[in-house]
Amino acid sequence: MDRVQLFEQIKKKQSYLCVGLDSDIDKIPKHLLDKEDPVFEFNKAIIDSTKEFAVAYKPNIAFYECRGSEGWDSLKRTIEYIKKTAPEVFTIADAKRGDIGNTSKMYAKSFFENMNFDSITVAPYMGSDSIGPFLEYPGKWAIILALTSNQGASDFQTNKTAFGESMVRLGIRIGINTPLYETVLSKAQEWGTTDNIMFVVGATQASFISNVRSVAPDHFLLVPGVGAQGGSLEDISIAGLNSHCGLLINSSRGIIFASQNEDFADIAAQKAKELQLQMAQLLKDKELI
Amino acid sequence: MDRVQLFEQIKKKQSYLCVGLDSDIDKIPKHLLDKEDPVFEFNKAIIDSTKEFAVAYKPNIAFYECRGSEGWDSLKRTIEYIKKTAPEVFTIADAKRGDIGNTSKMYAKSFFENMNFDSITVAPYMGSDSIGPFLEYPGKWAIILALTSNQGASDFQTNKTAFGESMVRLGIRIGINTPLYETVLSKAQEWGTTDNIMFVVGATQASFISNVRSVAPDHFLLVPGVGAQGGSLEDISIAGLNSHCGLLINSSRGIIFASQNEDFADIAAQKAKELQLQMAQLLKDKELI
Repeated sequence: MDRVQLFEQIKKKQSYLCVGLDSDIDKIPKHLLDKEDPVFEFNKAIIDSTKEFAVAYKPNIAFYECRGSEGWDSLKRTIEYIKKTAPEVFTIADAKRGDIGNTSKMYAKSFFENMNFDSITVAPYMGSDSIGPFLEYPGKWAIILALTSNQGASDFQTNKTAFGESMVRLGIRIGINTPLYETVLSKAQEWGTTDNIMFVVGATQASFISNVRSVAPDHFLLVPGVGAQGGSLEDISIAGLNSHCGLLINSSRGIIFASQNEDFADIAAQKAKELQLQMAQLLKDKELI
Repeated sequence: MDRVQLFEQIKKKQSYLCVGLDSDIDKIPKHLLDKEDPVFEFNKAIIDSTKEFAVAYKPNIAFYECRGSEGWDSLKRTIEYIKKTAPEVFTIADAKRGDIGNTSKMYAKSFFENMNFDSITVAPYMGSDSIGPFLEYPGKWAIILALTSNQGASDFQTNKTAFGESMVRLGIRIGINTPLYETVLSKAQEWGTTDNIMFVVGATQASFISNVRSVAPDHFLLVPGVGAQGGSLEDISIAGLNSHCGLLINSSRGIIFASQNEDFADIAAQKAKELQLQMAQLLKDKELI
């Protein structure tokens, strides 16, 4: 799927909502536990009830991997089900992989060939050859961590380096004290295009999104952290929307675990629709639809 | 396993060799392919023939994951086999995981509870709370990427930042222009101890090892890149050995695929023994044994 096709779907559904399938077997409704594959049954119901409002699904791979081979089977069934019943939807393997070239190639094979995901989240620390193998698949995307929404993001991602601090102590300010996440945003643009690279940008502060837009104006951004992790949909959208929408905003727990009773799928649909309606208005305000 | 126990094993075997189980199903000897679980049979034979010379085994998770649930079964059988037949050996899940706290927790559960690995490799980009969950298990280790051996390592890990370059242009040198990997080495030492944190340091240049030792004198370093990826065992050992040995040097393809015929296990043993003998001499030179 390329950027134009993704934008077409966004305009049609009036939504840039990604539903995170963090389908923790300990949190899904209890009445599903006697099914043969409870996690798949849960995902199936969530997908059926939210696919009208969502343009993307993002299974968080850790929640499948921690169940070993059974978990991998649930994941495989889930991606196959999405491809069958909602083929227009963009799929994201939230795996945060990244290794030397010949190993990243195996990860790309896992998620792009064996499971037909449209994209995978990847960590940038190991540089170009750790990302390259994911960019060799036409129509597939690497979604590179830039600025994440967790507390530890300030350990390295926003690090101004000891150098910067000493410059301030010396009373010198030159204005080119680039935080690491901006270096990642700039450098990664050399590796691919706006049709195969997106960036993960946490939604803890809308000011960061504006800053990211000044470095990466045209790329799609995958934004976690709206809702449970904080961050206002409106502020982020005003700062982040571009001419192709350019945003996928993820909500996981706020949708899939809004109810843990038998009505979970209906409540999930309701929560997804609420976000979709806000997104429709924001797209209209921006004259994108 | 703590640092002292690991050092005891090193002294006993006169070796700090880690054998990388990058057991690519397309590269294992053809005569194994009619077995029920060819990759497990391959690993079993490699383990039986090299456990006398190796203090650690490191399955590269990508090579298992790319075979879906079958691959996970091979991995699980492999770790169970190591724990049964060579319980003294240190086991490393080379997974390079790292995510927000509640997700890293699931990864920790996968590798430490479900599969009983002693350690896992992790990427530092997301900072402290992405690593923390791995440090909560007594006797288990997080092995944090610092300086890797691939080409892309120079994209961010050794990055001196734009600031540093401009300082040089201005003719100012203060000597605190810290590359990212050194910041990782310093910062990560605040999160754990020499009994639960190791660092991955690539072996492309021994001078880097000396530099790492000045920042992290006491930690164990997992060193890939000897052999196929370049780097001299002797130079690296001279620069890297500390009072507790402090090195695990990995060789994967150079051992496990040294022969792809029926004699593969014998040839693997021979290659492992060659490295072990060199290591024994280096340990003696350093008066560690």
